[in-house]
Amino acid sequence: MSTYEDRLNALREQLKADRLDGFVVPLTDEHMSEYVGSYAQRLAWLTGFQGSAGSAVVLPEEAAIFVDGRYTLQVRDQVDGNFWSYQSVPQTSIADWLKEHAPSGGRIGYDPWLHTRDWVNKAKEALADKGAELVAVGRNPIDQVWADRPEPSRARLIVHPDAYAGESSAAKRQKMADWLKEQKADAAVLAALDSTAWTFNVRGKDVDRTPVALSFALVRDDGTADLFVASEKIGDDVRQHLGNGVRIHERSAFEGALAEFAGKTIAVDPERSVAAIFEALDKAGAHIVPRRDPAVLPKAIKNPVEISGHRAAQARDGAALSRFLHWLSIEAPKGGVDELSAAAKLQEFRQQGGDLRDLSFDTISGAGPNGAVVHYRVSDETNRPLEMDQIYLVDSGGQYPDGTTDVTRTVIVGTPTAEMKDRFTRVLQGHIAVARAVFPEGTRGGQLDSFARQFLWNAGLDYAHGTGHGVGSFLAVHEGPQRIAPPNSGQAGGDEPLQPGMFLSNEPGYYKTGEYGMRVENLVLVVEVEIEGAEKKMLGFETLTFAPIERRLIDTGLLSADERKWVDDYHAQVLAIVGPQLEGEARAWLERQCAPL
Amino acid sequence: MSTYEDRLNALREQLKADRLDGFVVPLTDEHMSEYVGSYAQRLAWLTGFQGSAGSAVVLPEEAAIFVDGRYTLQVRDQVDGNFWSYQSVPQTSIADWLKEHAPSGGRIGYDPWLHTRDWVNKAKEALADKGAELVAVGRNPIDQVWADRPEPSRARLIVHPDAYAGESSAAKRQKMADWLKEQKADAAVLAALDSTAWTFNVRGKDVDRTPVALSFALVRDDGTADLFVASEKIGDDVRQHLGNGVRIHERSAFEGALAEFAGKTIAVDPERSVAAIFEALDKAGAHIVPRRDPAVLPKAIKNPVEISGHRAAQARDGAALSRFLHWLSIEAPKGGVDELSAAAKLQEFRQQGGDLRDLSFDTISGAGPNGAVVHYRVSDETNRPLEMDQIYLVDSGGQYPDGTTDVTRTVIVGTPTAEMKDRFTRVLQGHIAVARAVFPEGTRGGQLDSFARQFLWNAGLDYAHGTGHGVGSFLAVHEGPQRIAPPNSGQAGGDEPLQPGMFLSNEPGYYKTGEYGMRVENLVLVVEVEIEGAEKKMLGFETLTFAPIERRLIDTGLLSADERKWVDDYHAQVLAIVGPQLEGEARAWLERQCAPL
Repeated sequence: MSTYEDRLNALREQLKADRLDGFVVPLTDEHMSEYVGSYAQRLAWLTGFQGSAGSAVVLPEEAAIFVDGRYTLQVRDQVDGNFWSYQSVPQTSIADWLKEHAPSGGRIGYDPWLHTRDWVNKAKEALADKGAELVAVGRNPIDQVWADRPEPSRARLIVHPDAYAGESSAAKRQKMADWLKEQKADAAVLAALDSTAWTFNVRGKDVDRTPVALSFALVRDDGTADLFVASEKIGDDVRQHLGNGVRIHERSAFEGALAEFAGKTIAVDPERSVAAIFEALDKAGAHIVPRRDPAVLPKAIKNPVEISGHRAAQARDGAALSRFLHWLSIEAPKGGVDELSAAAKLQEFRQQGGDLRDLSFDTISGAGPNGAVVHYRVSDETNRPLEMDQIYLVDSGGQYPDGTTDVTRTVIVGTPTAEMKDRFTRVLQGHIAVARAVFPEGTRGGQLDSFARQFLWNAGLDYAHGTGHGVGSFLAVHEGPQRIAPPNSGQAGGDEPLQPGMFLSNEPGYYKTGEYGMRVENLVLVVEVEIEGAEKKMLGFETLTFAPIERRLIDTGLLSADERKWVDDYHAQVLAIVGPQLEGEARAWLERQCAPL
Repeated sequence: MSTYEDRLNALREQLKADRLDGFVVPLTDEHMSEYVGSYAQRLAWLTGFQGSAGSAVVLPEEAAIFVDGRYTLQVRDQVDGNFWSYQSVPQTSIADWLKEHAPSGGRIGYDPWLHTRDWVNKAKEALADKGAELVAVGRNPIDQVWADRPEPSRARLIVHPDAYAGESSAAKRQKMADWLKEQKADAAVLAALDSTAWTFNVRGKDVDRTPVALSFALVRDDGTADLFVASEKIGDDVRQHLGNGVRIHERSAFEGALAEFAGKTIAVDPERSVAAIFEALDKAGAHIVPRRDPAVLPKAIKNPVEISGHRAAQARDGAALSRFLHWLSIEAPKGGVDELSAAAKLQEFRQQGGDLRDLSFDTISGAGPNGAVVHYRVSDETNRPLEMDQIYLVDSGGQYPDGTTDVTRTVIVGTPTAEMKDRFTRVLQGHIAVARAVFPEGTRGGQLDSFARQFLWNAGLDYAHGTGHGVGSFLAVHEGPQRIAPPNSGQAGGDEPLQPGMFLSNEPGYYKTGEYGMRVENLVLVVEVEIEGAEKKMLGFETLTFAPIERRLIDTGLLSADERKWVDDYHAQVLAIVGPQLEGEARAWLERQCAPL
C-alpha cells in the first residue's frame, strides 16, 4: 500500500503530465454530497484526513489542507504536517490561499463535476490577480493515479413506501410541475441525492450511513420525470413503484440529456448543482433560471406521517441508548470498556431494538481527551479505555425506515470535578434555552444560536461548531436548508426561516483540548406555539429525543427554577416513553436517572 | 403652494417630456447620506413623507412608496393612499415591484448620483425580464419641476480641534496612505460626508442635525488629499488647519478630477459611493478596487479622547434629561403639557446645560397612540396633550462638540395598567440582557439582537426595528458599520464584528398600535471584559447614558435577582453622575427615582 507521501508525489507527476501547476481536491461528489461513496473519497485517499468536511490544494512545491473548527485537532493527527500546511476555514478560503500561493501565470486544475459554479467564479477571480488560470480538467488527475480506486456501488434501490413517506411521488412531482409553470420553466434539475430519493420515494445504499442512490433527475412541468441511475440497480418492484410517469435512463446519460434543452427554460440550483451541469446547459443553449431545488423545502418540512414515524423511531432509539447507558454505568467503572467496544455495544443495542437499517453516521465515541476532538472517529490507533473520573462523550444515531436519529450524551465515569460540572451545566443551560425558545414566524436559526452559547460566554468559553442542523426522514443526518449557527460561520442555512415541521438538532457543547469534551444533543421539531394575547404567529421547539441526561454532571445551584423544571419535565417524558420498553435493573436504573433533580 | 397631487402630475409631465416611463426617487444625496440637506429632500417634496428612510417609484398610471417597519403607520398618515400604494421593505424591494409593474419594454429613469452601482445592477436585472430598461438621467426630473427647491447650504466649515478628535488629520491620512500602499492603490475616494468630516477634523452645517459639510475627497498614497467643497465655505482658520497637505477644490470639480485617474488604481467603496462615481472612473479608464471607505472603521472605533469627550457630553445630557423628567413629573399630571411643548422644554434644558450645537435628530415626542409610531415626528397637526394614565415616549439627543447623544425614556403620567407594566418590564429585560451580554471577540451585532427580544417573544410580542445602531463622535447619530439587528432585516451592519471602542445604542421597544409605544434606550461602549479562566478575549458593553428609568412601569415580580441588581446599580450610577449637577427639588426627585427598587 502506498504511503501518503507516495500519493502526493504521484499526483504531482500526473499534474506535470497534464500540464497543470496545481489541483484543487474537494470532499464531495457529482451531487455536492456531504457524505460520499468510497469511490469519491479522494481527499482521504490523498491526505489521510477522515473528517466529513475539508478540501486541499496541491501545488508543485507546497500543499495545503483546509478544514473548519470541528477538525482543527483531528487534521493534525491524521494529515502529515511535513507535506501539508493546515488552513482554517472560513478564516482562510481556498481562493484567498491560492491568491497568495498560486504561481503567477500558472494553470490550476479543478474537476467541474465537484464544484459549484459560484466557487469556480470566485476562484477564477482570485487567480486573475496573479495572472493565473483555473482550468477544468476532463479527467480527474487523482483518479488517474489512484490504482485501487473502488467502483461506484451497485446496490439496488428500495421502495420507500407511502406509509413512511406520507405523500406519493406522483403527488410530489405534481406540486413541482405546478411550481415549474409558475416559474415559466420547462423542467428542473435534481442533482442532490437526497432530493432524488425524496422525490421518487426510493432509498439506496450507495453512500455509507445515508440511504441514497447515485442518480440525477429532471422533473418536467407535466409531472413526469427522467431518472438517471444505473439500470442494474432498479428491480421490478422499484420500476413498478416509479410507474409510467418516470422514464429511467443510465446515470451516464445525464450529461447528454442536458443537450436537449436547447431553447428551453430549466431551473437549476446553483448551490446543489455542479459547474459541469451549468456548462453543459450553456453549451446546449438552454435558458437557465437559478432556483433552489424544488425538493429542498418540502423535504425539510416533514408531513404528519413523517413526524409520527420519527416519533416511533425515537422511542425505539431512546430505549437502545438508555440500555447502553445503563450497561455503561455498570461496566465502565469496572474497567475494560474502551471507545471501540462501547460503540460496538451501542450498535448492538440499536440492532436488538429492531428495524435498524444502518447507523446514521459513524459513532463518535470519545473518552477523556478524545472527546475534545469535535468530530472524533475512533480507530484502533486512537482507541482509549474509559477511565475513572473521566468524561465520556457518545454521539450516535440510527437509520430506521421511519426516521433518522442523532443524539449525544455525555457521562462521567466515577466522580466529576467541580469544573466539569460547571462546564456541563452551562452547556445544558444553553441546550435548555434553545429547547424553550419562543420566536415569531420568519425567525431564522441564526437568530437563536446565541441563546445556546450565552452561559458559556459568561465564563469566557465557547464552542467551535454550529448549534443545530436539519435532519432527514430516513435520509441524510445533516439535511438543509435550515440550521442554527452563527451568521457568517461559513455554514449555510443560518438565514433560513424556521417553519413548523422542520427537524433540527440542538447540540451545544464544550471542549477542553487534551482533557475532555461534552455535548448535549437532542433533536427538536419546529411547532406552532399558542400564546394568549400573542400579536404574531409564534413558533417554538418540541423535543423529540428521549434518553436521560447525566445528572451527576449537573450543578443544580447554577440552574434557574425554570431550567430545573425543564430537566425534571424532560426526564419524566423520558421515563414515560422509554420506561415501558425496559425491564428489571435497567428499568430501575432509568427511574433513578429520571427522578426529579 | 402646490398640492402633492399637483407635484405628482408635474413629475409625470416631465417624465413624458424626458421620454421616460417611470422614475425612481430615493431618499439620499450624492453621498449616500441617511439625513440629507433640504435641497435633496425630493421624496418629502413629492410625497409628503417625513420619515428618514424610504423611496418611491412613479409610473405613468401608478406610484408606490417603499418604507420599512418603522414607518408602516407614519406613511399612511402622511402620504395620500389615493395616489400612492404603500409597500414594505425588505419584504418587497423596488426591484421586485418594478419587475411586476414596470411596462414591458419601458424606460425607467434613475439619477446615477443617488444610487449605488449595486442597486443599479440589481434593478437592471429585474427589469431585463420585462424587456424594460433602466436609464440614467442627466438631470433629475424632480429638480426640473420643483420650482422653489432650496439651494445647497452655504454654511462655513468649522475646525474640530484635536482636543476633541484625539488624532490629527495628518496622522489619520498617513494611516490611510499606508493602507493604500498595502492595497497597491494610488488613492481612495471618500464620498460619505461623515468620512470627510472625520478625516479632515472639520465639521459643517449643511445637513440638519448632522454636523457635516457637502464635500468629496480623494486621499493619496503620499498622505496628501484633495478636498472638494464650495470654497466660499472655507475660512482662513479652516484653511490653516487643513495645511499644505490638503488641496482645496470646488465641489463641482470632483467629477472632472476622476478623469485624471486614467491608468491609475483607485479604491472606491461600493456601499458609500454612487454609481456616477464608478461610471466616471470607468470612463476615464481607471482601475477600480472595491474597498470599504478607509475612514469607516477607525471612525467607528473611538479613541480614548473621543470616549472621554463622550462621557462628558453624556453627563451634561443626562442632567438635562433628568431635569426635564423632573419637570414633566410635576407639570404633566396638571395637564397643559403637549408633545410640542414637552419637546421644546427638553431642548431648553439641553441648551441651558451649555455646549449644545444642535439636536442630534428631531425629537420623537409621542404621547399615547403617537408613541406607537416608531419614528414619530410631532407637528402642529399631530400634536397631542400628555393625558393622565397614558404613556409618553421621548427619544432625543444632542450634538455637543465632544459627543453625540441619543436616549429614549418612557414615562407614565398617572397610573399604568398591568399590561403596560408587563410590556415595559419585558422591554427593560431585553435592554438589560444586551447591557449585560458577554461575548467573544469577533461576535457580530446580529448575534446579540435576539437577547433583546426574548422576553417579548415569550409573550408573543416583538418590535419592528433593530436593537442598536452605531453613533458618531459629534457626527451622525446613526453611524456604521456596526449594528445590532436581525440578520436579513434589510439594515446593513448586523454582520460587522463588534470591536472595543465602538459606540452602539441599546434600544428595544414595544408598540401597541392606537394605544402606546415604549422604548428604553441607552448608548453603550464595547469594552474588553476580564473573566477568570476565559479561553478567549471576551467583550461586553459599558453603558454610557445616565438618566432614570421609569420605576413605576417596572413589574419587579418579573425581574430576576440579577436584573433587579442591574437596575439598582444603574440608578446608583445615574445618581452619582447626574446628582451633583441637580439642586433642590430636582435633586430630591432624582434620589427617589434612583433608590433601589
